[in-house]
Amino acid sequence: MQTIKLTIQYDGTDFNGWQIQTKQPSSRTVQFEVEKALAVLTGEMIKVTAAGRTDAGVHARGQIISFSTGSSIPVDRYPAALNGILANDIVVVNSEHVTEDFHARYWVKEKTYVYRIMNSKFPDVFNQRYVYHIRSKLDVGQMVLAARAFEGNHDFSSFCASGSSVKSFDRRITSCKIIEEKEMVTLEITADGFLYNMVRIIAGILIEVGLRKRPPADIDRIIKAKDRKAAGHTAPPHGLTLEKVYY
Amino acid sequence: MQTIKLTIQYDGTDFNGWQIQTKQPSSRTVQFEVEKALAVLTGEMIKVTAAGRTDAGVHARGQIISFSTGSSIPVDRYPAALNGILANDIVVVNSEHVTEDFHARYWVKEKTYVYRIMNSKFPDVFNQRYVYHIRSKLDVGQMVLAARAFEGNHDFSSFCASGSSVKSFDRRITSCKIIEEKEMVTLEITADGFLYNMVRIIAGILIEVGLRKRPPADIDRIIKAKDRKAAGHTAPPHGLTLEKVYY
Repeated sequence: MQTIKLTIQYDGTDFNGWQIQTKQPSSRTVQFEVEKALAVLTGEMIKVTAAGRTDAGVHARGQIISFSTGSSIPVDRYPAALNGILANDIVVVNSEHVTEDFHARYWVKEKTYVYRIMNSKFPDVFNQRYVYHIRSKLDVGQMVLAARAFEGNHDFSSFCASGSSVKSFDRRITSCKIIEEKEMVTLEITADGFLYNMVRIIAGILIEVGLRKRPPADIDRIIKAKDRKAAGHTAPPHGLTLEKVYY
Repeated sequence: MQTIKLTIQYDGTDFNGWQIQTKQPSSRTVQFEVEKALAVLTGEMIKVTAAGRTDAGVHARGQIISFSTGSSIPVDRYPAALNGILANDIVVVNSEHVTEDFHARYWVKEKTYVYRIMNSKFPDVFNQRYVYHIRSKLDVGQMVLAARAFEGNHDFSSFCASGSSVKSFDRRITSCKIIEEKEMVTLEITADGFLYNMVRIIAGILIEVGLRKRPPADIDRIIKAKDRKAAGHTAPPHGLTLEKVYY
């Protein structure tokens, strides 16, 4: 037996998220496609674990997955072999051995998500699958200020969609920043963990700040409220990408 | 009546090219989608003319189209109104009045096409619809040298796919250059006109030069041969974008 860790990218547009939907087994998921490709390659039914269970429409540049196999295929052959089997919207970019106790999710120290906004008169046809287009001019200076207020240890109950069954809402955001480059406004957020829809709810509030619908000072108030109703709308999934996982 | 010129972008992936296919009217074309949207907007059956009739799978960032209409809708309303009707893979980014004798194709002075190659171990899932991925290391220095040999006035018979009914194969390439930026190798080519598949045949030969399958000196020989069989394979359509049209 060997335990293998893969780094994969996917365009989430045509997937119903990472995780196999037991209630809708026919819906296309990244996990199902990867497990199917591994079955073709190794002849085994392999269950894989991912660092982050991304939602429908969310992309990944540096998703980490792991699995154990009895196959003797050399570890460095996996990327090219799997890419030959997988559809174009999933690409395996790295493979390495890990100890058998490695767990792609439990062992995560931090993850970085990026939420991309294009603030321009018209969308760009070549990035519209990966960025959220906003036509109204954003006050990016206000967004930069507001983003900083998320950094630190907080109870993020106000930023968790219902349907979650976590025990604690405490998370530590190491870095939360807004980067402006021409018409692109990018939210980059690194934390030791994320609650359900947390980045998209934070992005939604920062957009409201950028549209001057609320002041940056609102962020502290919303965090302290510990109530989902205190926060605003959830930004759409297609702007979100799981960028990097740290162990 | 007013004559209107629009600048449009499209992701060519899911289109059977620009032009309505009279033999396959049900196949999805950019022209059909634009004419359908104009019919919804104006209530008229409008025929549009494009600067370049791009092939199946080829993209456009600055395609120019023109048409005449009896509608009194103000010209500056067209982009937002059409974008509201069109699918996401076509975006209208500009509109302006032109004189009624304007012709989007006959009046073209020059056009710039770009052919994008990603030279890396693995494809990038976020640009694979728009770039041609080549795994083997390219000798870009040789490609830069070879590209220059295409510049000038030449009979480009060797670079025209069969099925074309043009009278003259003479074209003037004002600029033909290879630009390298990290893993991206981009061919940018500006000419007063292009023969059928000309850019993709040129890209195919430059790739052969990059792979050291032929020396840069071959270009002059192939041009002089005036024979399609002298040139090599045709690079795939998805790397090609009609970038800009000059009048």
